[in-house]
Amino acid sequence: MIIILRKNSDVASVKKLEAMLSEKGVTANYIKGTTQSIIGLVGDTTRIDESSIIAQDCVDSIRRVQEPYKNANRKFHPDDTIIDISRTKIGGGTLHIIAGPCSVESEEQIIETAIACKEAGATMLRGGAFKPRTSPYAFQGLGGDGIKLLIKARENTGLPIVTEIMSISDIDYFSDIDIIQVGARNMQNFNLLKELGKCSKPILLKRGLANTMEELLMSAEYIMSEGNKNIILCERGIRTFETMTRNTLDISAVPLLKQKSHLPVCVDPSHAAGIVSLIEPLSLASVIAGADALEIEVHCDPKSALSDGGQQLTPDKFKQTMSKIKDLCNYMGKKIG
Amino acid sequence: MIIILRKNSDVASVKKLEAMLSEKGVTANYIKGTTQSIIGLVGDTTRIDESSIIAQDCVDSIRRVQEPYKNANRKFHPDDTIIDISRTKIGGGTLHIIAGPCSVESEEQIIETAIACKEAGATMLRGGAFKPRTSPYAFQGLGGDGIKLLIKARENTGLPIVTEIMSISDIDYFSDIDIIQVGARNMQNFNLLKELGKCSKPILLKRGLANTMEELLMSAEYIMSEGNKNIILCERGIRTFETMTRNTLDISAVPLLKQKSHLPVCVDPSHAAGIVSLIEPLSLASVIAGADALEIEVHCDPKSALSDGGQQLTPDKFKQTMSKIKDLCNYMGKKIG
Amino acid sequence: MIIILRKNSDVASVKKLEAMLSEKGVTANYIKGTTQSIIGLVGDTTRIDESSIIAQDCVDSIRRVQEPYKNANRKFHPDDTIIDISRTKIGGGTLHIIAGPCSVESEEQIIETAIACKEAGATMLRGGAFKPRTSPYAFQGLGGDGIKLLIKARENTGLPIVTEIMSISDIDYFSDIDIIQVGARNMQNFNLLKELGKCSKPILLKRGLANTMEELLMSAEYIMSEGNKNIILCERGIRTFETMTRNTLDISAVPLLKQKSHLPVCVDPSHAAGIVSLIEPLSLASVIAGADALEIEVHCDPKSALSDGGQQLTPDKFKQTMSKIKDLCNYMGKKIG
Amino acid sequence: MIIILRKNSDVASVKKLEAMLSEKGVTANYIKGTTQSIIGLVGDTTRIDESSIIAQDCVDSIRRVQEPYKNANRKFHPDDTIIDISRTKIGGGTLHIIAGPCSVESEEQIIETAIACKEAGATMLRGGAFKPRTSPYAFQGLGGDGIKLLIKARENTGLPIVTEIMSISDIDYFSDIDIIQVGARNMQNFNLLKELGKCSKPILLKRGLANTMEELLMSAEYIMSEGNKNIILCERGIRTFETMTRNTLDISAVPLLKQKSHLPVCVDPSHAAGIVSLIEPLSLASVIAGADALEIEVHCDPKSALSDGGQQLTPDKFKQTMSKIKDLCNYMGKKIG
Repeated sequence: MIIILRKNSDVASVKKLEAMLSEKGVTANYIKGTTQSIIGLVGDTTRIDESSIIAQDCVDSIRRVQEPYKNANRKFHPDDTIIDISRTKIGGGTLHIIAGPCSVESEEQIIETAIACKEAGATMLRGGAFKPRTSPYAFQGLGGDGIKLLIKARENTGLPIVTEIMSISDIDYFSDIDIIQVGARNMQNFNLLKELGKCSKPILLKRGLANTMEELLMSAEYIMSEGNKNIILCERGIRTFETMTRNTLDISAVPLLKQKSHLPVCVDPSHAAGIVSLIEPLSLASVIAGADALEIEVHCDPKSALSDGGQQLTPDKFKQTMSKIKDLCNYMGKKIG
Repeated sequence: MIIILRKNSDVASVKKLEAMLSEKGVTANYIKGTTQSIIGLVGDTTRIDESSIIAQDCVDSIRRVQEPYKNANRKFHPDDTIIDISRTKIGGGTLHIIAGPCSVESEEQIIETAIACKEAGATMLRGGAFKPRTSPYAFQGLGGDGIKLLIKARENTGLPIVTEIMSISDIDYFSDIDIIQVGARNMQNFNLLKELGKCSKPILLKRGLANTMEELLMSAEYIMSEGNKNIILCERGIRTFETMTRNTLDISAVPLLKQKSHLPVCVDPSHAAGIVSLIEPLSLASVIAGADALEIEVHCDPKSALSDGGQQLTPDKFKQTMSKIKDLCNYMGKKIG
Repeated sequence: MIIILRKNSDVASVKKLEAMLSEKGVTANYIKGTTQSIIGLVGDTTRIDESSIIAQDCVDSIRRVQEPYKNANRKFHPDDTIIDISRTKIGGGTLHIIAGPCSVESEEQIIETAIACKEAGATMLRGGAFKPRTSPYAFQGLGGDGIKLLIKARENTGLPIVTEIMSISDIDYFSDIDIIQVGARNMQNFNLLKELGKCSKPILLKRGLANTMEELLMSAEYIMSEGNKNIILCERGIRTFETMTRNTLDISAVPLLKQKSHLPVCVDPSHAAGIVSLIEPLSLASVIAGADALEIEVHCDPKSALSDGGQQLTPDKFKQTMSKIKDLCNYMGKKIG
Repeated sequence: MIIILRKNSDVASVKKLEAMLSEKGVTANYIKGTTQSIIGLVGDTTRIDESSIIAQDCVDSIRRVQEPYKNANRKFHPDDTIIDISRTKIGGGTLHIIAGPCSVESEEQIIETAIACKEAGATMLRGGAFKPRTSPYAFQGLGGDGIKLLIKARENTGLPIVTEIMSISDIDYFSDIDIIQVGARNMQNFNLLKELGKCSKPILLKRGLANTMEELLMSAEYIMSEGNKNIILCERGIRTFETMTRNTLDISAVPLLKQKSHLPVCVDPSHAAGIVSLIEPLSLASVIAGADALEIEVHCDPKSALSDGGQQLTPDKFKQTMSKIKDLCNYMGKKIG
């Protein structure tokens, strides 16, 4: 961390700052400049609160040098994290395809969709039971009953299941779920993150609409700091000025998150684009850019879907996309599942 | 709502769509165009899920005409909402100043700050007990104990108290709080919103970093649809590409939210700017643009603050700012409190 | 400027970097850290190209300490710049109101509008002759003929005239113009900026839709580095995810640009909002936040305007707004014009 | 185009609007709604100025149905545009690799780099002679001399050359250039676009930092409306809140631009990322997403580059990347060049 001092700061104020830094266990190196002077800090600055330093009289501004995350940082954990999920693993060079409907709507719908996904080559099943909807007047999901239907679908297909948690008070419903998803809108619901850090279930952590990669890694850090190291990061599009797509898929996040962190990275092209015709090209792009998993919305009958009908693939279209993904993995020497 | 049909859609598919719309209680008006044809819907479209329509074969895209919110909409509720708070009111032409520290840190700190705020002219006290922090290693707030200290500060000053809730499991701590704040990161924590809709306490609802005004109004709608109509909307800066300020204060939101909705509007210049020297000009701009309240961070000793030291005003600086705000209100014929 | 070194950089590479820096006339101060080491530079770094340093093997990243602009920087020029314009001045505590139509359309239209603007209290006349339009099929302005009509309108009213230049090849048309405007889309048309730096006319430099304040100041620096110091900075809204307004007025830019620079600051609420009902509150907010000028679109008959009809005020509405602005200036002890 | 009428608009005002629309050659279809009424327009609305309609008393707002571009629109030109460039073609299923330095710096540098690029498999040579730099103190390019050096490099290697124009006054220098590039900052320099529309040279049109895909297509339309149909669209990253990369590559633009338009699409991963380690994954992602060309910065000695040193590949690194690109094209059955 580097502290830029105000011009003409008085010596007493700088001395006071140096004493305060020394108390925090870091060493201050003062450099006198012609127009501005700076202090470079040596030591572990992860736990130093920037705002407490900015508040000092003699401080103009601060520049961070170290990343503020440690557990999620590849510098300190060079090897890829590989996460066990029932009989399979995420991370370490394979590709998982998490497919299924936006919402679980009925036993028939989820089982029919799950079977179709499996036949096409999906390795996990997704489905929303607790649904975060912008409008209170929209379908809010089947809740606990939806979870039960997902478990039935797993019994029918053997596919591990992934579903979203919206509130820690629902945690008991998730005891038999394989991967718990944290949605984009909850990426900074820090209470939820802390509680999930106390369980050992794998967490699929989605990047918030307006959150930087560093903030995503800090949210992973929240979970990890409580003990749970089984985290999959998920890029699902960020909010920009462009309106032709629902969000803007930040494809650079795939290689960059893998450089900065050892955690596996998933991409959700369905929410990123919001347009059926983009799912296939964005899936292929994500795979070749290094993604460890894809999460794709598939519905046995999108026209009658209770949510997100416009971005869910039909089983036929998903089969075509899977065929392209399989060919690409084959070319890359990458195993699916 | 207007449905734009695909070129060359077959008649059967359009007929099916019209039947589906008719079931939803709206009337479809078909207009044949030279390059594209459209269907205009007549009736209440608030509860129609756009994605279910986009999923139909014959549909190219959709344009909304009606706003998707009703309870929060000034078209249906032309009169200003005025909210009772102990012995005072928010909305209806007065100005409230909600001042206090980012975090409650100790009895001495909150009482000293509360007294200074009151003396300078603040009409309510803010203070964070449950704190949403980006880093798990930063000070996380005093929790329930912080709430007790806020109540002591109210006993000392008579100022009504405003504090943030992060999880519905903490709701019992808030039974004696005057206004419950929902932070920017929780603006779309729909479970929390629904539960708050079931109580009757005034809610200060902050706009999310990357949320549109329409989404803010939809989140208000969530609370209102459960029965609680006592909502204050709060603009606190949005995330943009500009890095010189912490966020970009969307000053247009003040007059626009007041045009679109009957709910009172508050502005938080402290979080918007993140820079002490901008608090005063942004406060004055917000007042003259029509804000019903300001929320300003004040700390008796910002240099030793445990959070957000860099953007909290000293009591002296706050007194100067209040003096300018009072003069402006006097000029505008606006009562403070 | 601070250079953050890669972990385990070899000594030879660091020595080479230090030699290269020394050649550029700055002194390098090396600080060894526990996880990372840094080099702090002492001297004038304004002319150092960051990318040439990042390209070195041993460099991880760079943090700027000094602002990269000098001529436009208040640190080096503490006094407000005051610009002479025929018989008046911009900057130094007064307020100018630059009003007029989006486009000059005819002699009758510009003269009728100019007279109405003057009667309402405008101090300068704006009007587009060369028009940057998103669509090639839209009205492109009257060009040189439009400039002649503006000059006629000045003869009729005595108001100094402001109009936009789109290409340096048109410069001869601007010899009798009082202020040359550079539009948002040309803020980084560096050839145009350099050429304008060679004349002595006052330049109204609009902030680009997606440009930071620092980039705006760097564009001012382009003009100033060629000799022309007569620059008025203009905030006109930036592009964000919000769609309810045309752009998002960055009101914080007003006080912040005035803190960082000595140049006068203008605000254009018409382009920022794109909504007639927001012009008045945004104008008042800008004035109280410290703006030196406002640029407002007024048309004698907006319903028949050839461009931007939806955001131009009628003379009546402008008169009402001017009355509020005058009252506010009166309260603030600020002179108009 | 759909016009949404204000509630309670008087009949006379609506009649007036209908007459005005009829004059513009479109037919108005009136639909009476319960809360709002609308008018649907039938006919060619490309040339209708929205703002002139919004200015009418009875109009609340407008929703476009038709795209505002025609020449660039695949609906009207279903076949891919294929552009002839000396002995080669862009578009129609092949892949071109445009490689070379950010700036032309010397004869030795450009020829050495060109030879290395060709040997690695590049099919065209890029190099900046006229350079748009944010700082007036940075290297501004060799100008006309740089163009001459590019031509020499073409003589040495046979690679067609691509270089950026910044001002129409420089056009004579470009008479022997193969593809003229319009940079991101000039995407809405409409005068420049119009002039380039009058020549027949292929134009590589870069998307602006904050411009939507629709605006990019409208800028292509500017050039095309003057007669020049030889346009290559180029995605090069947009400006977002994310700071870890220089810009955010909008990978969805590749398939979407190709769906909406018949023009070839190029991707520039160097400017999008600004980070050497991302060039390869972003290149591969762009190719598999359907790009017709890539533009990659390569420098024979990035450490001594006069601009953008941090994002230019060394010849060795470029060779590795090209090897991956060739393999991928081979797998896809796509010809390079």
